[in-house]
Amino acid sequence: MSELNQDQAFQDQYWIQRAIDLARLGQYSTKPNPNVGCVIVKNGQLIGEGYHPKAGQPHAEVFALAQAGEQAKDAIAYVTLEPCAHYGRTPPCAEALVKAQVKKVVVACSDPNPLVAGKGVKILQDAGIEVETGICTEVAKTLNLGFLKAMSTGLPYVRLKIASSLDGRTAMASGESKWITGTAARQDVQHWRAISGAVITGIQTVLADDCELNVRALAGVDLTTVVQPKRIVLDRQGQLPLSAKMLQNPETVMVMTPFRQELADLGVIQLAPQPLNQLLQTLSQQYQIYDVLVEAGATLSTAFLQQGLVDEMISYVAPTLLGQSARSMFNAELSEMAEQLRFELVDVTQLGQDIRLRLLPTQEMI
Amino acid sequence: MSELNQDQAFQDQYWIQRAIDLARLGQYSTKPNPNVGCVIVKNGQLIGEGYHPKAGQPHAEVFALAQAGEQAKDAIAYVTLEPCAHYGRTPPCAEALVKAQVKKVVVACSDPNPLVAGKGVKILQDAGIEVETGICTEVAKTLNLGFLKAMSTGLPYVRLKIASSLDGRTAMASGESKWITGTAARQDVQHWRAISGAVITGIQTVLADDCELNVRALAGVDLTTVVQPKRIVLDRQGQLPLSAKMLQNPETVMVMTPFRQELADLGVIQLAPQPLNQLLQTLSQQYQIYDVLVEAGATLSTAFLQQGLVDEMISYVAPTLLGQSARSMFNAELSEMAEQLRFELVDVTQLGQDIRLRLLPTQEMI
Repeated sequence: MSELNQDQAFQDQYWIQRAIDLARLGQYSTKPNPNVGCVIVKNGQLIGEGYHPKAGQPHAEVFALAQAGEQAKDAIAYVTLEPCAHYGRTPPCAEALVKAQVKKVVVACSDPNPLVAGKGVKILQDAGIEVETGICTEVAKTLNLGFLKAMSTGLPYVRLKIASSLDGRTAMASGESKWITGTAARQDVQHWRAISGAVITGIQTVLADDCELNVRALAGVDLTTVVQPKRIVLDRQGQLPLSAKMLQNPETVMVMTPFRQELADLGVIQLAPQPLNQLLQTLSQQYQIYDVLVEAGATLSTAFLQQGLVDEMISYVAPTLLGQSARSMFNAELSEMAEQLRFELVDVTQLGQDIRLRLLPTQEMI
Repeated sequence: MSELNQDQAFQDQYWIQRAIDLARLGQYSTKPNPNVGCVIVKNGQLIGEGYHPKAGQPHAEVFALAQAGEQAKDAIAYVTLEPCAHYGRTPPCAEALVKAQVKKVVVACSDPNPLVAGKGVKILQDAGIEVETGICTEVAKTLNLGFLKAMSTGLPYVRLKIASSLDGRTAMASGESKWITGTAARQDVQHWRAISGAVITGIQTVLADDCELNVRALAGVDLTTVVQPKRIVLDRQGQLPLSAKMLQNPETVMVMTPFRQELADLGVIQLAPQPLNQLLQTLSQQYQIYDVLVEAGATLSTAFLQQGLVDEMISYVAPTLLGQSARSMFNAELSEMAEQLRFELVDVTQLGQDIRLRLLPTQEMI
């Protein structure tokens, strides 16, 4: 690579990273839309930038082009996701870039939807605009794990959250469990809820804890900008009490249950009882829920794990021992090491006195 | 603090840290003696340094003074542990410092033995040498946790090593367990063995694994310099087979067992069956074993924990789930959260795909 080209490559990385940082500003508010950032640069100077803040509002490119104005002519546009090519609530961004006469567009991440992939790029190229792809692609993908997975497979990205003691227990035999992990770990969970389209739990957890599973506090974030996740209760017997706290905001509650008129009267969305993999498909394809957080007891968590439906496990471990009669975090009955569920450890972070592990199921398991 | 004094304080910290680094060079070879380092500085220049390499060889101060020679007059000596005041295998170091006419001695850590504490300092002060203490004391203490605890309480410092799955299991119900953790974690265990005077295990572990529990590999360390830990088998029924691998080096094996002539014939030290707390006292007071590593199954590990005999738990966690019928790492039967064994997390380190937690039992527990 020549020195000039290398310098350009460094610059491209720098500006794409800035676009990624911008995109992330929308992480709690754009769902079901993806997080996208855009930066426009001319002669090494930033002349416009923007990000998609919310469904129904303009896309990142529109904000950045508006800021750049006529200077956008012959500039370079950096976008974290392939510009859209379709008329939705807004006109296609690819056409806006053509109209602004930018000379080059650097795209971190292609549109994964096989029906539209490459169309945005084609519009640009047909207009004589140079398009470069593949820069910081892996990092840009982490902005939209759910959206990207849903567009390419029809299934949401599923995170399983588990909090346990060092000896793998989630509660005493009696059910007593408050609190195993500390405030920093519990606060961290709020982030994962806030980036999720839905939090799934089981009826037993609701009956035991009367949990709300909503986003109540995010450091430095105005909660009114957060699109609250749907709270989904798996309740095959129809046991959810109408007095459940989460029904105080019924419009964000969904229940998988035999049909109940009283829930319909509250405006709660009801889903027919169905297998977990089909439920996930339903959530993605009918409800545009692309990121799912499972916060459930061991039975439901184990079912998700054993059915190979978990994309990432977020495991909080508290420095305590609860003993062998306490409840296990993972209920499967395995008899040989060959049956173990192995994960790849991608991150370990200390949160107060607890640790958080981020784990990806290994290939062998699925 | 004046600027001059502050500058001197920074210098003192710097040189004491160097003495600590030197002391650590003896970490695998000095036992039962403590690790000690010494640095001699004159006009801001290093003029001599040394560490105690091995029992029977000269102390750190002797090496450092020899290197400094006549320049030691009016210099500052930095030592990690209070200079000895007694005639042992070598003459007292406090007297050597007096003879060399240093003007000041900075001592990181006092001698903890109540019978000798302060005597080294007194010899120096009586000779008109300025003595300063309290610099980097906490770090210097970590060089000799076992020695310091044994000198002040008569008990060794006990580390409990446990390797488990994320769900707190050490083996399948069948006993199958190889390997839960990976090579980096298993390699790390070698360090903890090598700084220990003894590794304690239970007879069931020996019968199941025929383990040797010796130090077989330490990166960058000549194994012939390592003082191998004693391997101690708790065998109240006298079941240790004479074919056990560890009996190939019987001189480093101790067995707590009803007396067996065939073990005596091999030269194995036998200890009368006794409670664990008494055993620890025996090891410290009769055998100068000041650092103990417990590497045992759940029954013995749980006994050490529940009797409050563990000073530090070293917990390796592998990113895998083994299921609820697998063996628990902690066998206690607790019914309420109030009975939990809580720890303070002092370090978390990723080792390959595993993590290592260093944990101190919290006050409430003991």
